Amino acid sequence: MVIVMKDSATQVLIEAVSERLKSLGFDVHKVVGVNKTILGAIGDKRDIDLRQFEIMEGVQEVVRITEPYKLSGRTFHQDNTVVKVKDASFGDDEIHVIAGPCSIESEEQVFTIAEKVKKAGATVLRGGAFKPRTSPYSFQGLGEDGLKILKKAGEEFHLATISEIMRENQLDMMLEYVDILQVGARNMQNFPLLKELGKIRKPILLKRGMAATIEEFLMAAEYIMAGGNYDVILCERGIRTFENYTRNTLDISAIPVVHKLSHLPIIVDPSHGTGLRDKVGPMARAAVAAGADGLTIEVHHEPEKALSDGAQSLYPYQFERLMEELRMIAWAIGRKIKQG
Amino acid sequence: MVIVMKDSATQVLIEAVSERLKSLGFDVHKVVGVNKTILGAIGDKRDIDLRQFEIMEGVQEVVRITEPYKLSGRTFHQDNTVVKVKDASFGDDEIHVIAGPCSIESEEQVFTIAEKVKKAGATVLRGGAFKPRTSPYSFQGLGEDGLKILKKAGEEFHLATISEIMRENQLDMMLEYVDILQVGARNMQNFPLLKELGKIRKPILLKRGMAATIEEFLMAAEYIMAGGNYDVILCERGIRTFENYTRNTLDISAIPVVHKLSHLPIIVDPSHGTGLRDKVGPMARAAVAAGADGLTIEVHHEPEKALSDGAQSLYPYQFERLMEELRMIAWAIGRKIKQG
Amino acid sequence: MVIVMKDSATQVLIEAVSERLKSLGFDVHKVVGVNKTILGAIGDKRDIDLRQFEIMEGVQEVVRITEPYKLSGRTFHQDNTVVKVKDASFGDDEIHVIAGPCSIESEEQVFTIAEKVKKAGATVLRGGAFKPRTSPYSFQGLGEDGLKILKKAGEEFHLATISEIMRENQLDMMLEYVDILQVGARNMQNFPLLKELGKIRKPILLKRGMAATIEEFLMAAEYIMAGGNYDVILCERGIRTFENYTRNTLDISAIPVVHKLSHLPIIVDPSHGTGLRDKVGPMARAAVAAGADGLTIEVHHEPEKALSDGAQSLYPYQFERLMEELRMIAWAIGRKIKQG
Amino acid sequence: MVIVMKDSATQVLIEAVSERLKSLGFDVHKVVGVNKTILGAIGDKRDIDLRQFEIMEGVQEVVRITEPYKLSGRTFHQDNTVVKVKDASFGDDEIHVIAGPCSIESEEQVFTIAEKVKKAGATVLRGGAFKPRTSPYSFQGLGEDGLKILKKAGEEFHLATISEIMRENQLDMMLEYVDILQVGARNMQNFPLLKELGKIRKPILLKRGMAATIEEFLMAAEYIMAGGNYDVILCERGIRTFENYTRNTLDISAIPVVHKLSHLPIIVDPSHGTGLRDKVGPMARAAVAAGADGLTIEVHHEPEKALSDGAQSLYPYQFERLMEELRMIAWAIGRKIKQG
Repeated sequence: MVIVMKDSATQVLIEAVSERLKSLGFDVHKVVGVNKTILGAIGDKRDIDLRQFEIMEGVQEVVRITEPYKLSGRTFHQDNTVVKVKDASFGDDEIHVIAGPCSIESEEQVFTIAEKVKKAGATVLRGGAFKPRTSPYSFQGLGEDGLKILKKAGEEFHLATISEIMRENQLDMMLEYVDILQVGARNMQNFPLLKELGKIRKPILLKRGMAATIEEFLMAAEYIMAGGNYDVILCERGIRTFENYTRNTLDISAIPVVHKLSHLPIIVDPSHGTGLRDKVGPMARAAVAAGADGLTIEVHHEPEKALSDGAQSLYPYQFERLMEELRMIAWAIGRKIKQG
Repeated sequence: MVIVMKDSATQVLIEAVSERLKSLGFDVHKVVGVNKTILGAIGDKRDIDLRQFEIMEGVQEVVRITEPYKLSGRTFHQDNTVVKVKDASFGDDEIHVIAGPCSIESEEQVFTIAEKVKKAGATVLRGGAFKPRTSPYSFQGLGEDGLKILKKAGEEFHLATISEIMRENQLDMMLEYVDILQVGARNMQNFPLLKELGKIRKPILLKRGMAATIEEFLMAAEYIMAGGNYDVILCERGIRTFENYTRNTLDISAIPVVHKLSHLPIIVDPSHGTGLRDKVGPMARAAVAAGADGLTIEVHHEPEKALSDGAQSLYPYQFERLMEELRMIAWAIGRKIKQG
Repeated sequence: MVIVMKDSATQVLIEAVSERLKSLGFDVHKVVGVNKTILGAIGDKRDIDLRQFEIMEGVQEVVRITEPYKLSGRTFHQDNTVVKVKDASFGDDEIHVIAGPCSIESEEQVFTIAEKVKKAGATVLRGGAFKPRTSPYSFQGLGEDGLKILKKAGEEFHLATISEIMRENQLDMMLEYVDILQVGARNMQNFPLLKELGKIRKPILLKRGMAATIEEFLMAAEYIMAGGNYDVILCERGIRTFENYTRNTLDISAIPVVHKLSHLPIIVDPSHGTGLRDKVGPMARAAVAAGADGLTIEVHHEPEKALSDGAQSLYPYQFERLMEELRMIAWAIGRKIKQG
Repeated sequence: MVIVMKDSATQVLIEAVSERLKSLGFDVHKVVGVNKTILGAIGDKRDIDLRQFEIMEGVQEVVRITEPYKLSGRTFHQDNTVVKVKDASFGDDEIHVIAGPCSIESEEQVFTIAEKVKKAGATVLRGGAFKPRTSPYSFQGLGEDGLKILKKAGEEFHLATISEIMRENQLDMMLEYVDILQVGARNMQNFPLLKELGKIRKPILLKRGMAATIEEFLMAAEYIMAGGNYDVILCERGIRTFENYTRNTLDISAIPVVHKLSHLPIIVDPSHGTGLRDKVGPMARAAVAAGADGLTIEVHHEPEKALSDGAQSLYPYQFERLMEELRMIAWAIGRKIKQG
């Protein structure tokens, strides 16, 4: 921590801050300038509330110099983490695509879609069984019956499976059906849930909260990793801004930023990130061009009849065409997407 | 719903939209202008995904005309809801103040603070036993032991008690100790938790999520009320904006907006809303002046030793002085705050 | 400036940064910890682009320790600046209110309103002659003819006058008619205009840009003051956030923040800050309660016929009643608003 | 306009609204449902302040159905506008890149950079002569001397030229030196300046304001076009959000949105959009992949010595490599970037 004292800070005030730092176990180095005194506090303490210094008399500014995250940061883990699940891998040279319907609606629906996305090159099948709906009056998902369908389709088409977990007590049950557990944006800081997910040994797809800074995003991953589960895939899905034409503003720049700060793979969700079908293609292409390690895309063969999010789901033929474009873009930047 | 067709929309496209509306059960009224056709869809359907129309060919704009919330809205419930707990009431002419430490740390601490805030005029005692901390390495609260202390202090000083619930499985246990259950900002859209809280019959203090619109805030209240628990107190605690001098931007204008849209009481948390002790007083006064039905304020007798949020906690003498100012402001706008 | 080096930074990289700092004229102090090295750079240089260090190899974080503003900051000017114009003063114990129509429409209109607001206690008369309209097709103001009316009304009712300047070449002309020049939110960073206003010796009301941080706000004031014009009144008028129920989010917390960082007076514009008449009263009260040095409020005797912003204009009777409430709130916090 | 009346609105209130609409020249169509009445107001009026209806008694919601922009919108101008300047064209199948230093510093500097960027494939040379700096103490540009250098370099290397105009009275002078006039983000709503630019017949590059919605962006273009100058190139350069790791959040999704709403070309500025050199490449690639019609990129042969924005300037060798990648991405989506 670095503490900059005000020009007007007296010697007594400087000492008071210095003593407080020492009492917390820091080594304190004092830099005295003509007007300003700076206190450099050395010590590996990640859980200090900096604001206790900000409000001390004579203090102008307090700066943390240790990243608050450790396991998810690149400082102590230089090499990229590669998360592997069946044919999919996230974090190496290949770009993998998760595809499927927003909600699992029926076996016929899931099988129809699974066949199409597999053929187009997806390696993971998605489908929601428990839906976090803004309205209590909206369709809430098929529950465990849905997961059974998802698992069956995954086996039939040799696809890994992913579905969202909404509450801790669903965990044991869900582990029977899915290969990757998804944490939704609204649960990114559901700390008890994150802790439970730290105890298992299956990959977690962690979506960025709508108002989460990248630092908070990495801290949420830290919660899971602190429990011993290191297979975390990060997912950018749009942040909330003043611009309302799109549902959210997909923060494409989060991709290079996360790659710099963390060794974890990061993928992008252009479906929720835009909320509009005709924006999904351009943003998926942008994500791959910017270096994303994967994508998750909603596909539905009859989006106009979908029970949720039909408006942002691609038709299978659109998905197929998009995959072709993505393959060329991946190749342009030295990566690749396998043929289906 | 009102659907505005593009100038270029052909008759066929207009009919297609009209048919889709009818198939969903709406009565459709067509308004034909020189350039534009407008479709008015009449019917009480709150769970339609409007975007399915937005992406239909020929559609320019889709507008919902029914509020998505029902129980929490003022349309069907004109009179203010008054939530009463022991000596406190939220939603009538009196303004009530919740006060206490951020975290429960010890019996001595809670009793010391409780005595002070009671004397100054607070009617509810707050204290966190389970803390949602951004870092897994930070102090996480005393748990049930903390709640026992809180209950004891509440009884000793005739104060109602409030503490935050973080997970569903804490519910039964917490009901033994507290009079009001608090839902934190990060859990505002933890829908399974909200549903559980709808089943009980104790008041809920629901904090606004950092990136939640007022409509989403009311929809979260709707989740609780849809279960039959109508005693919901809303709490504005700051939204996330580009301005970072303060931790969050306390949205004071949410007070008159909520009062217009909803019959539920709304209080303000100036402690979390600013994160800085010297801003708590001005923002508490602003909240009362703008019409808030109450406040929740962090108070600590030794904030420099507090295990969390010391930087935003008032000293008891500051709280006492603030209560005096608030009393005068309340009086200026025709309300009142009782003497302690 | 403080530069924190990465744990992995080699001695060579540390030296390179140190040399760059010295070449720019800084005294460099090195603090060496177990893992980290911190460089404290001492020297009063306000115009260095910190990012040139951020991108140097081995650098983890760069922190400015000198505020970028000087004349507008409290560090070198402890006492409040009081801006006096005729009967009005901003920055002392009294709270002064600027009132009048959004646009000047006719002599009858301005005189009618001026008489009412004067009687209610306003000391400055506002009225727009050049209107910054989002649409080129909207009413753009009466121009100089409007200013003549404003001046006449000011003389008739002993009110100081204020109007917005939109371009440099209006300056000489406007100086003949108004006592305070207003810079609109969209021009807060119109640097050539700010420089011109630094050359004159009349007070400037500087509105905060919709997306301006408080630091940028003070830097804009700095531009004016650097030219020698120290009579700057700051005006908070709402920032742009994701919440769209209100036109902008009025940042009431900017009041105590500005009071801490700067000696300049700060007033609040609840009319533009909310855009809705029924929110103006609550937010005006909140502003005074939070410590604002004044208010600017749109008043119109026939708002339904106003050529602009009628929806946010108070009726004279509403303004009068509001002034009564504000007087009591001012009194509650030890300030006062004079009788009309 | 569509006006939705509240369930509780009486016949009298409905008539009042209807009358007001008629008095403004609208044709009014009434749709009466079981609970709700909807008024459809037909008429091409772009300059009505909708809020005057929002505050009328009995009104629940008011919805504009005519886009506020006309000349810049796609409704009345279906085909893409192609802006041609020398070898560059914006809006057709080719993607053109504007490159050069942030500030013009010397002839040697500009010529060195111009030669490099030309060779790499840029077709327009940029360079600032008047710099809008946040601090009055920062380097403000070489002025007209800089423009002379820019023009000379443009002629020498057969590149079109672009530079930013900051004030109206620079216009005549600048027209002698540059082929495209740039309007900076801070001036996007400097309406007097926009009006002046509408009178000339040279292309304008209009940057999106930091807090401007896409609708406001198109309205600013409308100001220029209303004067008769139709050659407007839009430029996305990052919006202000809560995320501060990058200077701004580059809104890549603005590209497909603008393409849908407007016929004007849109390019992207990844240099200002991120503020950090190592993020420029990924975001430039993302922009092209998402469909941008061009880019503007800061390049400097000695960025560590640049007088402004060195931290976000690419080295010439980085720019060259980036152009190669962009060529492949352009090809992948059916467009092309010419060889230098």
